[in-house]
Amino acid sequence: MSNSVSRREFMNLLGATFGTNALIQMGSALSLMPTTASAASLSLAAPIAGKGKVLVLGAGISGLTVAWELTKAGYDCTVLEASNRAGGRVMTVRSGDVVDEIGNNQVCEWDNEPHMYFNAGAARIPSTHRNLLGYCKELGVELEMFINESKTAYVQDDAMLGGARIRNGEMSTNVRGFLAELFAKCYTSAQLDQPFSDTESEKILGLISQFGDLNENMLYKGSSRAGYVSGGFLDHGIQKDMVAFKKLMESQMLGLSFTANEGETGPMLMQPVGGMDMVIKGFTRALGDKVVYKAPVTGITLKDDGVDVSFERDGVRQSISADYCFNCIPSHLMTGIPNNYPSDYFESMSSIKRGEAYKSAFQAKKRFWEDEDIYGGISWINAPIQQIWYPPHGIHKAKGVILAAYNFGGGMHFTKMSQAQRVEAALAQGEKLHPNYREMVEKPITIAWHRMNHMLGCSGRWGSGFGGWTDEIQTLFDRLQQPTPGGRHYFIGDQVSYHGAWQESAIASAHWALADMDLRARNMGV
Amino acid sequence: MSNSVSRREFMNLLGATFGTNALIQMGSALSLMPTTASAASLSLAAPIAGKGKVLVLGAGISGLTVAWELTKAGYDCTVLEASNRAGGRVMTVRSGDVVDEIGNNQVCEWDNEPHMYFNAGAARIPSTHRNLLGYCKELGVELEMFINESKTAYVQDDAMLGGARIRNGEMSTNVRGFLAELFAKCYTSAQLDQPFSDTESEKILGLISQFGDLNENMLYKGSSRAGYVSGGFLDHGIQKDMVAFKKLMESQMLGLSFTANEGETGPMLMQPVGGMDMVIKGFTRALGDKVVYKAPVTGITLKDDGVDVSFERDGVRQSISADYCFNCIPSHLMTGIPNNYPSDYFESMSSIKRGEAYKSAFQAKKRFWEDEDIYGGISWINAPIQQIWYPPHGIHKAKGVILAAYNFGGGMHFTKMSQAQRVEAALAQGEKLHPNYREMVEKPITIAWHRMNHMLGCSGRWGSGFGGWTDEIQTLFDRLQQPTPGGRHYFIGDQVSYHGAWQESAIASAHWALADMDLRARNMGV
Repeated sequence: MSNSVSRREFMNLLGATFGTNALIQMGSALSLMPTTASAASLSLAAPIAGKGKVLVLGAGISGLTVAWELTKAGYDCTVLEASNRAGGRVMTVRSGDVVDEIGNNQVCEWDNEPHMYFNAGAARIPSTHRNLLGYCKELGVELEMFINESKTAYVQDDAMLGGARIRNGEMSTNVRGFLAELFAKCYTSAQLDQPFSDTESEKILGLISQFGDLNENMLYKGSSRAGYVSGGFLDHGIQKDMVAFKKLMESQMLGLSFTANEGETGPMLMQPVGGMDMVIKGFTRALGDKVVYKAPVTGITLKDDGVDVSFERDGVRQSISADYCFNCIPSHLMTGIPNNYPSDYFESMSSIKRGEAYKSAFQAKKRFWEDEDIYGGISWINAPIQQIWYPPHGIHKAKGVILAAYNFGGGMHFTKMSQAQRVEAALAQGEKLHPNYREMVEKPITIAWHRMNHMLGCSGRWGSGFGGWTDEIQTLFDRLQQPTPGGRHYFIGDQVSYHGAWQESAIASAHWALADMDLRARNMGV
Repeated sequence: MSNSVSRREFMNLLGATFGTNALIQMGSALSLMPTTASAASLSLAAPIAGKGKVLVLGAGISGLTVAWELTKAGYDCTVLEASNRAGGRVMTVRSGDVVDEIGNNQVCEWDNEPHMYFNAGAARIPSTHRNLLGYCKELGVELEMFINESKTAYVQDDAMLGGARIRNGEMSTNVRGFLAELFAKCYTSAQLDQPFSDTESEKILGLISQFGDLNENMLYKGSSRAGYVSGGFLDHGIQKDMVAFKKLMESQMLGLSFTANEGETGPMLMQPVGGMDMVIKGFTRALGDKVVYKAPVTGITLKDDGVDVSFERDGVRQSISADYCFNCIPSHLMTGIPNNYPSDYFESMSSIKRGEAYKSAFQAKKRFWEDEDIYGGISWINAPIQQIWYPPHGIHKAKGVILAAYNFGGGMHFTKMSQAQRVEAALAQGEKLHPNYREMVEKPITIAWHRMNHMLGCSGRWGSGFGGWTDEIQTLFDRLQQPTPGGRHYFIGDQVSYHGAWQESAIASAHWALADMDLRARNMGV
C-alpha cells in the first residue's frame, strides 16, 4: 500500500527531537565575536587617554545607540546628521511636519493633537526585542499595546466574493472549519496503517474539532467565532451563514490568519505613546547638543590612527578628526561620498540592495471604523495598498489618523506616481472596504522611501531579501561587519544585519561594533 | 469503498450556504420586543405627568444604565445600593480599598499609583460590545488595548513535559506543525475519490503548509514561529528544537491556541485606563447624588400603580414609593427579601443558578515577567489557579499587579479555603512558571465571589450554563424578563440575559426593560 502513512513516518514528530539545535539556514556560522550583546551586557571601558574622540555619521537608531553608549563610557562623541531631524527611517509625521520627499514636498496639516500622528517608518516593537525595549526603559519612553490582528477588520480581494469585504474572523473561521472537516474525513478514511492508538486518535480528532469548531459529527456547520448576524445577549444569537469554500478559494489570501500574526508581527506588540520617534527623542534628549543637524558628510578619509571626516554646515565645508568613526549612512548613499575605503570593503557596501516601502495616511474626520467594531488592527487588501491600519490609540476621540497604504516589496508602484495618483489609488481601494471612505478622509500624506531625501531607499537587503543567503553573501557581509583595517571605522545599522527593517537589528549591529571596538581597545591598546 | 470521501460530502462546504440564517441553538424564538436596542436607538419619551418617580434597586451596571437613561429622559430616579460602592461585580481593587469578603475582610496595601490596580470582576471589553463602548464614549471613559494572547506567555501542565513550562507560541507552533504534516499525509493518502481538482488540491495543500509552517516536502521540521534559541539579528537564528508531539499529547491543553482567543476573548479587546470601575465612575459621576449607598432593600411591595420599597439607612428603616422599579439585586439574594411577587415570577427568579468565580492578585515587587519578554497576555495552567494575567499597562514601571489566579466554573475550590491556603496555592503553582515567583510577589488580595458581601455569587446562569437551554428554561426566562403584572417592576441585569458575566449583557437587559416600559407608557398611558 504505497500511499499509506505508517507510524514510522511520524516517529520523528511523535517521539524524537533533533539532537542538536538546528540552524534555520545553511551557510551560517557563529561569529567568534559576541553576537547577542545586549545593553545590559555591554560594559565598555573608559577611553584610553588621547583616544576618546568619536564621530558618528548619521543619527539613525544605530548611530544614536553608539553615541549614547560611548558617551556613558566617557568618550567625546559628535553625531553628524545630514537632515534636519534624527531617526532616519524611524519617522513620525505630525501637524506642521515637512515631508522631505524629493519632488513631492508635503506639509502635514492634521489637527495638532497628541494622538494625531503617523509612523511612516518603524511602527511596531515585538516583546522579544530586548535591546530596544531596554533603551525605552532607560530613556523613559512610555509604551502601550499595539495589535496587528483584529477579527473585526476586513479582508478584501477583487477576486473573491465579487470583491466584497469580509471580516478577518469570518474568513478565518470558515477556512478553519472547512479544513478541519476535510482533515477529519481524510484522517478517518486514510489508510493509516494504524499509526496511532485509539487514545491518540481521540486526542487528534479532538484537536481537529477545536481547530475548526466542528460539531459532534465532525462537520462544520458554521461557528459563532465568525460573529453573529444579530442577538446573542437576550436571545440565542443568529449565526452568520457559512461562506462557501469555493468562493473563498478564489483568493490567494486565505492563509493570512495562519501567517500574518506569527513571529515578530504576532502578539504581543507595543508602540511608544505618541509616536515611534519618542524612542529617537529619548536618545537625542540624552545626547543634547552632541547631535549636529543639517551637516551632510562630504568625505571620509581613513587613517592609521583615526578618521578624518569633512561635512558641510550652513554652506561652509568643515572637517573633523576623530579616533573612532561609526557610520550608519545608507550604503547606497555612502558609496557616492568621496572616501578611501579598501576596494573589498567598498565592494561589500555596494552589494547591499534596498528594500522598497511605501506608506500613506489620512486624517479621518471621524473614527468611522469604530462604528464598525474596529479598534486597531489591520485590514488586508489584495491590491497595491496592501494594508489599512486603524489606530490602536486615541479610542473614541473625534478624529484619528488612518494608515491608508503599506506597500512593502513592491513600493516602486507608488513611488513612480504623482501625489494625486497615489491619493486616488488609496481612495479608490479604500472605499471598497469602507463605502464612505472618500468622504471621511482628508489631508493625505504619502511617503515613498525611495524618494525621501537623505534616504532614497528603505532597509538594506543582502541577497534576494528572504532567503538566498549564499557563501558569497556571507563573505561580503562578514567583511563589512568588521572594522576597516586598523579598527578605527565601523559600518553599522540594520544594513549590517541579517534582519533588515527592524530597529532591534540596527541596535544589534551597533552593539556588535561597540563590543568589538571595546575588545580591541582593551586587548591591543590601539 | 465505504470509507472514501466523495466530493458530494463536501458540496455543502464547497458550494452552498445555508438557505437561511441558522439559529445557534434549538428552542430559540425571537422576542416580539426589541432585542437589540442600543443606546443610540433608545429614544425614551418624557414621563407622563405624575408618573415620573423611578426606584432602581442595585447600582450594578444594569441599574446604573436604567437610572442614567431615565434621568436623561426626565424621570426622577433614585438608586438604592446595599454596599458602600457602586458596580457590583465590576470591581477594581486599589490601595486602601476594603475587600468585603465575608469572614475574610482584606485591606489592599499596594502602592498607591494609577497602574497598581486589579479588576476583580469584569476585566475585558470586546470591540463588538457596542452599548458598553457607547457609554464609555458618552461618559468620557478612556480606553486602551488589552490582549489575551501572548505567544511569549506560558502553558504549564504537570502532566506535560514533566511539568516544565512552555511558551504559548512554542506549544501552538509544534501542535500546528504536527497536525499539518499529518493532514498533508492523510490528504495525499486518503481514498478521496478525486473530490478536488488539481488546482484546488494545490490550494488546500498550500493552506496546510501555511498553517503548520511545513517545508517544501510538506514536513514539519520546526519553525521560527516557536522563537529562536538565540540570534537572528547578526547571524542566522538558531531555531528551537521541535517538541515531540507524544510529549505534548500528555496535556489536555493543546487546543488552547485554537479556542482561547476566539469570539469575545479574541482580538481585539479593550480595558478602561486605570481600572474597569472607571465605567462605573462614569455613571455615578453623571448621576451625582441619585445613588444612595449603604441602603440595603428590606422589602418590595408591588402595587397596581407602582412599587413600595423599604430599606435601611444608618440603622433606620425607611420606605419609598415609586411609579416604576428596576431591580438588579442578585436573584438569590432577592428571593430572601420580603416581597409579594407572583408565585410564577418568584419561581423564575429562584431557578437562576450562580456561576462560581475566584480571582486573586499580588503586588509584584518587580515586573519580572518583562525580563522574560512578557508584556501582557495570559499564561495557562492546568491547575485550579487556571490563569496568570500580566498587566498590559504600566509597562516598564517599577512594580505591577499580577493576576495570580482566575478560576471560573470551579471557584468553590478556593472559596472554601482560608486566606493563607489560597495564597500558598497561588505561590506553589506560580513558581512552576516563574521560579522566583515567591520572592517577587507580596500583599495578596483574594476574591471569592460566593463570599463577597452583597453578592454571594457570580454571574446568573440559566440551565447548565453552556448549552442545555430547554423549553422549560425558556418559559422561566421569558416570564422573568417581562415586567410584573401591571408593568411597574422589571427584573434586570446579566442575570436576565442569555450571556451572563458580560457587562454588555447587563446593559442589553436594561435596554430591553427600558424599551418595554417606554412602549407601554406611550401606548397604554399607564
